[in-house]
Amino acid sequence: MTAEIVSVGTELLLGQITDTNATFISEKLAERGVNVYFRQTVGDNLERLCATLRLAGSRADAVIITGGLGPTDDDITREALAGIVGVELKQDPQAAASIKAFLKARGRSVNAATLRQARVPEGGTIAPNRHGTAPGIIVEHDGSEFIALPGVPSEMHAMLEDCVLPHLEARGGGPGPIIKSRILHLSGVGESALGEMIGDILQGQSDPTIAPYAALGGVQLRITTKAASDEDASTKIARVEQQLRARLGSLVFGTDDETLEAVVGTMLAQRRLTITTAESCTGGLIANRLTDISGSSAYFVGGVVTYSNQEKARLLGVAPELMEQHGSVSEVVAKAMAVGARERSGADMAAAATGIAGPTGGTPQKPVGLVWIALATQESVICQEHRFHGARDQIKWRTSQAALNMVRLRLLGEL
Amino acid sequence: MTAEIVSVGTELLLGQITDTNATFISEKLAERGVNVYFRQTVGDNLERLCATLRLAGSRADAVIITGGLGPTDDDITREALAGIVGVELKQDPQAAASIKAFLKARGRSVNAATLRQARVPEGGTIAPNRHGTAPGIIVEHDGSEFIALPGVPSEMHAMLEDCVLPHLEARGGGPGPIIKSRILHLSGVGESALGEMIGDILQGQSDPTIAPYAALGGVQLRITTKAASDEDASTKIARVEQQLRARLGSLVFGTDDETLEAVVGTMLAQRRLTITTAESCTGGLIANRLTDISGSSAYFVGGVVTYSNQEKARLLGVAPELMEQHGSVSEVVAKAMAVGARERSGADMAAAATGIAGPTGGTPQKPVGLVWIALATQESVICQEHRFHGARDQIKWRTSQAALNMVRLRLLGEL
Repeated sequence: MTAEIVSVGTELLLGQITDTNATFISEKLAERGVNVYFRQTVGDNLERLCATLRLAGSRADAVIITGGLGPTDDDITREALAGIVGVELKQDPQAAASIKAFLKARGRSVNAATLRQARVPEGGTIAPNRHGTAPGIIVEHDGSEFIALPGVPSEMHAMLEDCVLPHLEARGGGPGPIIKSRILHLSGVGESALGEMIGDILQGQSDPTIAPYAALGGVQLRITTKAASDEDASTKIARVEQQLRARLGSLVFGTDDETLEAVVGTMLAQRRLTITTAESCTGGLIANRLTDISGSSAYFVGGVVTYSNQEKARLLGVAPELMEQHGSVSEVVAKAMAVGARERSGADMAAAATGIAGPTGGTPQKPVGLVWIALATQESVICQEHRFHGARDQIKWRTSQAALNMVRLRLLGEL
Repeated sequence: MTAEIVSVGTELLLGQITDTNATFISEKLAERGVNVYFRQTVGDNLERLCATLRLAGSRADAVIITGGLGPTDDDITREALAGIVGVELKQDPQAAASIKAFLKARGRSVNAATLRQARVPEGGTIAPNRHGTAPGIIVEHDGSEFIALPGVPSEMHAMLEDCVLPHLEARGGGPGPIIKSRILHLSGVGESALGEMIGDILQGQSDPTIAPYAALGGVQLRITTKAASDEDASTKIARVEQQLRARLGSLVFGTDDETLEAVVGTMLAQRRLTITTAESCTGGLIANRLTDISGSSAYFVGGVVTYSNQEKARLLGVAPELMEQHGSVSEVVAKAMAVGARERSGADMAAAATGIAGPTGGTPQKPVGLVWIALATQESVICQEHRFHGARDQIKWRTSQAALNMVRLRLLGEL
């Protein structure tokens, strides 16, 4: 089965919004083995929308349309569908009742514009909308099925999952070959070093494919395969993943949607250890990332953002002479920050970072991007020097990633 | 002049990446008055790419292509261009020299695959690439100009700005009517309350149009107009902006790319005031946002993230009895955090937040989303109660936005 995706809306063609709907639908169709060879984007113009739909219908079994189903005069997807099929729009009583019920439940009144959304091309059927007023429309013409969904992402997502994907599957959208991916997240290695480590695997490998992507503060490896079933795909991917992991070891910190802060959080919780942070150049980002994880209060006691030297002395006990002699961006100060934070808070571990986030404040000796990260435990204090590049927010992010990765490696006993 | 955008890459059709290139090009063309009626996306398949380019060329003066210019066998945009024009690809000496120089400057070696990128359809010209190896290609056929750019966003952005837009302008892309937008950012008001405040302006206004968008922790108003020149557009937008600002006053905190942390930072710097933060539920997010601004060390002395009650007592001097009696999510504790932070740090102002970020930890009396934000100055301590909804990261963000907005309103003398 082949499908084509049509995104409708002048705001897309003006670049006012990014077409994340097309990404979402593409991904869901690929997961279910539906081939997508083309996507088209068109504005709120009846003639051009009809031409676009006709072209899509001429080359795909299913045409999935988003946008243009709203209540205003700009919303013309219904008219275009009726136009290409050559039928009239008529009010669908079930759709009208759903709209009224939806609005009533929210204490809102029904008006004529809203009820326009209940009109459906003759012979078409509606797809219910749990999250909004505009129902979806399914209409067949000339051997192709046209499926129109609202442009509001939350409404579209639910309708695609609840109704469209099962519908396509029932029509033979499965169980064709499916495309499945798995992402390995790496930290502590750059793209070129990674290339040297696994170049032979990359070159010898065609199914599943392995594609490296640069990520901020690390690298990703995307393993992708096409297989007859989800189970077959998983087996093929697992084999390659195992091969890569055997080579890469602890450079891989997680998979798919996993974040480094979630991985570190799970490790701390499992070991019943607590952590604190002492941040200068990251300005609270490390603490912010740790607390993005629900349940982080079990292992994160809190932290300090010591932007001024005065605060480094007051909150962490860093000796002013030390900062005067070595500068606040230095190995000794990073270590003193970590030790002070750990001792004063009573946490098991403390991560500290001091550096020059830029774009100003750099010198030839201490350029923008120079960062010291220290990790204090009961046993020791370790410290790493980094030279990061990029804009201010990138340097902050890379520092936070390196600091969290130090915590992870320490917990693994590799630091 | 009309242009059509063609995005090339199977990874787009699989939903592995979102097509932000199309958004960027659309926006830049709209700003310069180039009409875009269609966009197409196609995979790494020569036949389908040729069909897509022919269709685009049949209806647009200029076809802007991104992707498929890399060094691998999958990259077939050069072949497709040669195919539709009906010419051969030949090595361009200037392009080859640029690629060699680019790699040499980075200490990288030149191989055959990389030099494939120097091939250009006969009769075509190249557009230099400052940020990568693949040059752009410009080739004319049948009254349309085909402009191929790399898919890497940073390379594409620079080439579009440096070369393509001036080229289109020289070819008559200007000075047609242009589309211009301006965004007003609001804080402290919801979409429905805003609708009541300016409903009459929204209804009476057709050019420029005014469109409200919900944003996390606020609302945006996008003012858009079409005009003969940039100056005309600016005049029309300024008139409507003035009308909106007269009604909305300090609810508007910024425009276009301005962030609340940047606005607050500028105000603090101008007034030579310093600030500190005491965060519980936001976990460092407020400090992180303040320090995203270059030069923030002039007004941000630092802050604390006191996630545990013990740390609230140790770092801020909040009395344990107070937390026991009222709970750590309470008005009195928020105020004590702000007062303690200000007194101990010596900063002019302190912002403090305590609340339940969820998804766990809520009770009937203190549900997820309940947040207290306090602001201490030399003169007073003020405190606001909020009931935010959404996921954990949304509640954190909304709290940080409300806290920064309290600082802004206080500095304006409105709190």
